[in-house]
Amino acid sequence: MSTMSTRTEKDFIGEKEIPAYAYYGIQTIRAVENFPITGVPVHRELITALAAVKKAAAITNMELKMLPRKIGDVIVMAAEEMMKGHHLDHFIVDSIQGGAGTSMNMNMNEILANRGLELLLQNKGDYFHCNPNNHVNMSQSTNDVIPTALRIAAYRLSETLLDTMKRLQDAFRKKEQEFNDVVKVGRTHLQDAVPIRLGQEFGAYARVIGRDIERLEFANRRLLTINLGATAVGTGLNAKPEYIVKVTEHLSDVTGLNLQTAEDLVDATQNTDAYLELSAALKVCAVSLSKICNDIRMMASGPRAGFNELRLPPRQPGSSIMPGKVNPVMAEVINQVSFQVMGNDHTICMACEAGQFELNVMGPVIAFNLLQSLKIMNNGIDVFTRYAVEEMEANRERCALIMKQSFSVITALNPHLGYDVAASIVKEAMKTGNTLQEIILERGLLTPEELEEILHPEQMTTPGIAGEHFLRNMERL
Amino acid sequence: MSTMSTRTEKDFIGEKEIPAYAYYGIQTIRAVENFPITGVPVHRELITALAAVKKAAAITNMELKMLPRKIGDVIVMAAEEMMKGHHLDHFIVDSIQGGAGTSMNMNMNEILANRGLELLLQNKGDYFHCNPNNHVNMSQSTNDVIPTALRIAAYRLSETLLDTMKRLQDAFRKKEQEFNDVVKVGRTHLQDAVPIRLGQEFGAYARVIGRDIERLEFANRRLLTINLGATAVGTGLNAKPEYIVKVTEHLSDVTGLNLQTAEDLVDATQNTDAYLELSAALKVCAVSLSKICNDIRMMASGPRAGFNELRLPPRQPGSSIMPGKVNPVMAEVINQVSFQVMGNDHTICMACEAGQFELNVMGPVIAFNLLQSLKIMNNGIDVFTRYAVEEMEANRERCALIMKQSFSVITALNPHLGYDVAASIVKEAMKTGNTLQEIILERGLLTPEELEEILHPEQMTTPGIAGEHFLRNMERL
Amino acid sequence: MSTMSTRTEKDFIGEKEIPAYAYYGIQTIRAVENFPITGVPVHRELITALAAVKKAAAITNMELKMLPRKIGDVIVMAAEEMMKGHHLDHFIVDSIQGGAGTSMNMNMNEILANRGLELLLQNKGDYFHCNPNNHVNMSQSTNDVIPTALRIAAYRLSETLLDTMKRLQDAFRKKEQEFNDVVKVGRTHLQDAVPIRLGQEFGAYARVIGRDIERLEFANRRLLTINLGATAVGTGLNAKPEYIVKVTEHLSDVTGLNLQTAEDLVDATQNTDAYLELSAALKVCAVSLSKICNDIRMMASGPRAGFNELRLPPRQPGSSIMPGKVNPVMAEVINQVSFQVMGNDHTICMACEAGQFELNVMGPVIAFNLLQSLKIMNNGIDVFTRYAVEEMEANRERCALIMKQSFSVITALNPHLGYDVAASIVKEAMKTGNTLQEIILERGLLTPEELEEILHPEQMTTPGIAGEHFLRNMERL
Amino acid sequence: MSTMSTRTEKDFIGEKEIPAYAYYGIQTIRAVENFPITGVPVHRELITALAAVKKAAAITNMELKMLPRKIGDVIVMAAEEMMKGHHLDHFIVDSIQGGAGTSMNMNMNEILANRGLELLLQNKGDYFHCNPNNHVNMSQSTNDVIPTALRIAAYRLSETLLDTMKRLQDAFRKKEQEFNDVVKVGRTHLQDAVPIRLGQEFGAYARVIGRDIERLEFANRRLLTINLGATAVGTGLNAKPEYIVKVTEHLSDVTGLNLQTAEDLVDATQNTDAYLELSAALKVCAVSLSKICNDIRMMASGPRAGFNELRLPPRQPGSSIMPGKVNPVMAEVINQVSFQVMGNDHTICMACEAGQFELNVMGPVIAFNLLQSLKIMNNGIDVFTRYAVEEMEANRERCALIMKQSFSVITALNPHLGYDVAASIVKEAMKTGNTLQEIILERGLLTPEELEEILHPEQMTTPGIAGEHFLRNMERL
Repeated sequence: MSTMSTRTEKDFIGEKEIPAYAYYGIQTIRAVENFPITGVPVHRELITALAAVKKAAAITNMELKMLPRKIGDVIVMAAEEMMKGHHLDHFIVDSIQGGAGTSMNMNMNEILANRGLELLLQNKGDYFHCNPNNHVNMSQSTNDVIPTALRIAAYRLSETLLDTMKRLQDAFRKKEQEFNDVVKVGRTHLQDAVPIRLGQEFGAYARVIGRDIERLEFANRRLLTINLGATAVGTGLNAKPEYIVKVTEHLSDVTGLNLQTAEDLVDATQNTDAYLELSAALKVCAVSLSKICNDIRMMASGPRAGFNELRLPPRQPGSSIMPGKVNPVMAEVINQVSFQVMGNDHTICMACEAGQFELNVMGPVIAFNLLQSLKIMNNGIDVFTRYAVEEMEANRERCALIMKQSFSVITALNPHLGYDVAASIVKEAMKTGNTLQEIILERGLLTPEELEEILHPEQMTTPGIAGEHFLRNMERL
Repeated sequence: MSTMSTRTEKDFIGEKEIPAYAYYGIQTIRAVENFPITGVPVHRELITALAAVKKAAAITNMELKMLPRKIGDVIVMAAEEMMKGHHLDHFIVDSIQGGAGTSMNMNMNEILANRGLELLLQNKGDYFHCNPNNHVNMSQSTNDVIPTALRIAAYRLSETLLDTMKRLQDAFRKKEQEFNDVVKVGRTHLQDAVPIRLGQEFGAYARVIGRDIERLEFANRRLLTINLGATAVGTGLNAKPEYIVKVTEHLSDVTGLNLQTAEDLVDATQNTDAYLELSAALKVCAVSLSKICNDIRMMASGPRAGFNELRLPPRQPGSSIMPGKVNPVMAEVINQVSFQVMGNDHTICMACEAGQFELNVMGPVIAFNLLQSLKIMNNGIDVFTRYAVEEMEANRERCALIMKQSFSVITALNPHLGYDVAASIVKEAMKTGNTLQEIILERGLLTPEELEEILHPEQMTTPGIAGEHFLRNMERL
Repeated sequence: MSTMSTRTEKDFIGEKEIPAYAYYGIQTIRAVENFPITGVPVHRELITALAAVKKAAAITNMELKMLPRKIGDVIVMAAEEMMKGHHLDHFIVDSIQGGAGTSMNMNMNEILANRGLELLLQNKGDYFHCNPNNHVNMSQSTNDVIPTALRIAAYRLSETLLDTMKRLQDAFRKKEQEFNDVVKVGRTHLQDAVPIRLGQEFGAYARVIGRDIERLEFANRRLLTINLGATAVGTGLNAKPEYIVKVTEHLSDVTGLNLQTAEDLVDATQNTDAYLELSAALKVCAVSLSKICNDIRMMASGPRAGFNELRLPPRQPGSSIMPGKVNPVMAEVINQVSFQVMGNDHTICMACEAGQFELNVMGPVIAFNLLQSLKIMNNGIDVFTRYAVEEMEANRERCALIMKQSFSVITALNPHLGYDVAASIVKEAMKTGNTLQEIILERGLLTPEELEEILHPEQMTTPGIAGEHFLRNMERL
Repeated sequence: MSTMSTRTEKDFIGEKEIPAYAYYGIQTIRAVENFPITGVPVHRELITALAAVKKAAAITNMELKMLPRKIGDVIVMAAEEMMKGHHLDHFIVDSIQGGAGTSMNMNMNEILANRGLELLLQNKGDYFHCNPNNHVNMSQSTNDVIPTALRIAAYRLSETLLDTMKRLQDAFRKKEQEFNDVVKVGRTHLQDAVPIRLGQEFGAYARVIGRDIERLEFANRRLLTINLGATAVGTGLNAKPEYIVKVTEHLSDVTGLNLQTAEDLVDATQNTDAYLELSAALKVCAVSLSKICNDIRMMASGPRAGFNELRLPPRQPGSSIMPGKVNPVMAEVINQVSFQVMGNDHTICMACEAGQFELNVMGPVIAFNLLQSLKIMNNGIDVFTRYAVEEMEANRERCALIMKQSFSVITALNPHLGYDVAASIVKEAMKTGNTLQEIILERGLLTPEELEEILHPEQMTTPGIAGEHFLRNMERL
């Protein structure tokens, strides 16, 4: 039998023993019993955002004379502690939980109530003096505080991610310039196509990341519209009109964000499209990143049996058995992060679809996946930028050598010889091993001077308006 | 042995017999042999958009004196015929095909060349006078014409879809007004929660569809940026600078769309994020729709063993065995359309991720799924709006009856009695069958007058700022 | 106003004009109005399987004296016609439809009734003599006949697919033998690893396809368990006990399949896991195929700027602009088919999850995707096997050359020199361009004789038990 | 500047400071720097399985005289400690990491080497006496030890999950019996259909879970086939033939599992279909579970505004604002777990597809998701069974009442009155509020005696063969 000191708490379902030291209470204990699912704690950013919501609500309730100042003050103090990351070891409910976040909300309510009681020099559990539901949760419902906290948490993580994405974009732009003069064989269908500059390829990476940034910003701004004050179903039942107006103002102050109350609180409580929209933007970005990393891994393949056009900085020995092997691990981890984000989007999509009537009760699994996607994407891009992109180098000799050996200049002869004749030249070159030039001269199709004029790979990469754009892009950097 | 009259065509791979009547040629025949995959023809909108691209290219090539007017004129005439939907039975390549759309492009090139030859009173297959590659495809590559045509096709279908979505939004708004006075039990977790108006629920549906429209518009505008003139890899090889400028102008004229050349053609040729972004917007909308239809199907459940709050117009007998049964088939089909759109998005996502280097060769499967999503979503929403939403009726008596029987007013007593006391009242009511009012009066917690003042379900649905917003929304309609 | 000759039909909802020539009737017309969704007709295999179900039901009903022989005989005759593919132009309902397949079932019932009336020399629409519901659908419900027909259709397509997969497996095995002596650089992380034989790679492809066949067979056998006789919800209401026994026997005769009645018809009517299981098996196979095709496309990359270890037969010119270019189109189309199958699985997954209570009403979208997956996978593998795998060739010179240039033999020196020393040798070789052998001898680490003994790439590919398995596999072929 | 005591380690890339107390070494530190992605540690089951692999390898290497007994003994001792869960705080690499698991493998190798050095009374980092690569990793590669450990970990978690699933199946079977006599309205399309027993519904749940068990067992047995001895690419380079045979025997002893060496080690190293197959089986089960929980949540909906046919045990207060509200949280959490498993399957699918050539480098993200799916599914089903299924009760009065009010017996009149007449009766009853019986008698269609004989809802639920199966199922319990 345990000798741990406990206190007894009860609710309308029954009684539970709570460890005497614990700030959490009976509803937290019930949730811990009910949902031992992932073992992964709720994302810290969500907890601190929820604490901010509690602070703003308490301030507003005091202001409106609904909450005695004595009680309200300790709730605010306790909430501020949690905003700094204190007491996280008392926030013990699982990331995935039934009940649309009621258990998260009650875990927070109980911590603040008991920490408040402590500050009031009262006993923990003696909720007459500071009650999790009646005082801490006053004018609130899980259904408005959890979505509001999730939006704040997601917004903040998105802002961090956007900074990281911009650093990646910059790094790609720098490589665009640095690799501007590296002419290489362009590839379509993995087959040799026509000449391109390595810088142009990295420019294209920068551009698509740019659009990913735009998409994320578009999705992100929606998160600043919150449903605080909606209470249970969006009708604001039990929340005074003044409360709804003021609590958003106070929360804007507390968080430093420009938050706005949704025009239609029923809509804002029922619908989860803002999360899915954000996740979809992350997924599109994940696809861009995965494509880029696939390219980079192929360009860095080798050293002898691969393309070997790009040299990645060695970050760690690549094998426990093959000596000297170095793998493109920073690109590989981005592929994995991308797959995770795509899978998370799938989960979020199904969870959003499962919303019913006034509330989507699948909120916790949405939060779990959305915040994880934001976090791992940020972490992954950060190390990828610093440890791979910024330090990678072109293998200029190899690019030039392959360029010389390839038939990729043949397309430029189309306007001079016609598609069919040009095709027959390639076919002969493949068979005989002769160069295109030799065959053309041998067949008397063009003079050496004409050939000389036509076959400049560098010029083929910027022939006209495409070239002008290219040069203009260069200048802007 | 077939006695069908044929002609012989050849390319650098070999020879094929072509039916004498056919406008298509050897490359089409090769594609038909190689890709007998889905049996589903290429979407008509993509074919007509591709014809428009061919017309614009021919006009530009003539203008720049690259294409003899005699040849260019017949190409333009043939392209105009295809834009009207003629000769579709000669466009026989499968929707899913290897080769990034080369087979689609060549099917078009061959039809235009042979129809051009016919107009020139030459024999089909006599490509000296009008050549699929050298003349019809002049200054072009599959890699710029197919993406350009796909963008135009997707844009047009999106515009149609947007109109249809706006009709759905309007229909929901009308129901918001019509059901404004239908107070009913709000549901969270499928459990009785607090009072809400049926009109508020339909208002929420209108609002989320409104955001879906915004998202689609945001994604859609990107499609007007095209890569025509990029040719093979975005460097514009074999396309004159003037061509790149003018062909987009001509294509804008031909299509009536405000098209723009991409700033970075390498990027625009390599990346497929615009399609994925559009598909993601469709997916988010599909989730909204599916959630709404789930709600509607539940509200229409019954007639005796279900919620029975909503009456859908009977559209067809619902069973081959159960007499008189009518099912919510118009809502069910939207669920199915939504699932299809979500699966299509998954396919598009994988296909976009598989892009490599200068070109995404998975274009055909992207096009197949994107255009199907646009089409079925439009078709589904159209019939759902007309056959279900516009004609549905509230079952007012049933809503009122359930409201009366439920405990959903209890939450309004929280500020007066506290959460715990209120909970004990519900518990007693559940056990004894007594009403909340009876128990409260019996326990002497409130006076009849106080109860009378507090327990107005109608007022509970619009208590304060939420109510003001609600009323303002009403007025705007 | 149309002058098309029509007849009038009515049901409990109202009246409709039906074209006089049409075998279909009022419920089909309603469905066509309600569901103009995809434009893709119901898969032929599903229609013919449904006709077989109708035939078996009619025979059983006659045998049990429930259906007059005169009426039953013409239903059987009409059903036999449809089993042969006649009257498909009267089967006009869309693939995606609300109502769990009621419209498909009624389209069939109406065709059979009206074709039956014709055979009875009665007027179409004169359902007294042969009624779609009372006679054709006797003892049946959509909820048992459509799932039964879908299982039969899916089973048959799976059997065809299994044959096609076995041909692919054989083709890979033949290449395993043919490429047995082609030693090449094995790749991990796209980086040069240790030697391997090209034959071993193709052997691995054969093996995974072998497991895919096993998985498909495991999933497929479940389809032979049907719920015919379950009627509406699995309780068999309105179906005599003898009917349930006999109809499955008759359907086994009619189809030549060893069908069995489910032990629990409520379960078999409510659950759709058999479809999802089959789709999941297809998805796993799609992943195997896509991985294999990615490898093949990379090995065939080049000709000058890629790996160029494998030569695929040219199937069509690969570019409308780049002369002589040949692309790996047969592998590309398999990637696309695989992505489609994965997306279809997602759709099926969501549709199965959406089943409620006694019936999954999302049946039509499940059928649409499942049958499409089976079809395109079969078609794709068939052409891939014939046009790519069977005719591909190893580029032996290239494999040998890369082998010689690479450091992939270094791992074999680990046991002799230790990992760290071996790593330093590779590093030096990369820097200096010297061969591993030169450095080892120069450093005096091993004698030339020792080196000679250790560094046999061929032996490194089969060193011991792995080699024994390899040789045993070879012998089995 | 930190005053933490450190040691210096180096590899072919450079040097790093390692905390003096740490068992991990330079490669672990590199991995921690490179991959700060999820913050979620590697699943404990994977770590302990990897330790078992190391133990078996060391024993085999000693037996074959390749590893000095002195060194081997301490490796075995250290591995045994890790198998018991010691030193987990030194296993610090992230769950998602580039490099196919090299970092996991090296983290283990370094812990075992340094713990071994400690046992040998040598200094940590003094790898001459016990080397992570040369001794601990002897005869091994990441590419065989990580897949082997993952298979063992997944197998063990699957076995646990299978036990949990069987308990759920049993719980459903008990409810099948307990609810055997509860006749209720069956529902299709959420519309009232025909009578069914609540027990039949729970029997169907038991049956589908039974098939899910079969599927999982089928997938699971494949995991016992391992590729240990394959080393880098499946050719077994640097592993003696005797080693390959014996190491699997020793690992079988160490783990108590009946492990087998794969017939084709190249295949077993390159392909990841076994993981995807397992994940797909989990996904199918997730869909079954989610459907069941949707049903249960709907049946438990209410108490006044819902179906209210089922009573779930109250597990926690359901709202922070609505007093007395109890939500079906145990069913909701299963929905969420199911969505997570489906999303994880998506991630695994993409990661498996991304495998290239001899090795799938996306292994870590596969392991992360597969082990999470197994874990959360087990945890979720466990609490769902105990806290929801086992204790749920039928609301018999409600079921009977709805049955009485509904028209669900009408279908039984079809054979007596015909579909059309029956439909007209329902229509009249809906309009007038009269009962079916009243209308039938009024219209003189049947005598009271006939009606009495036909309209037994109980009998309608087991009419014939379906009934016999039903009764047989009952007996088996």
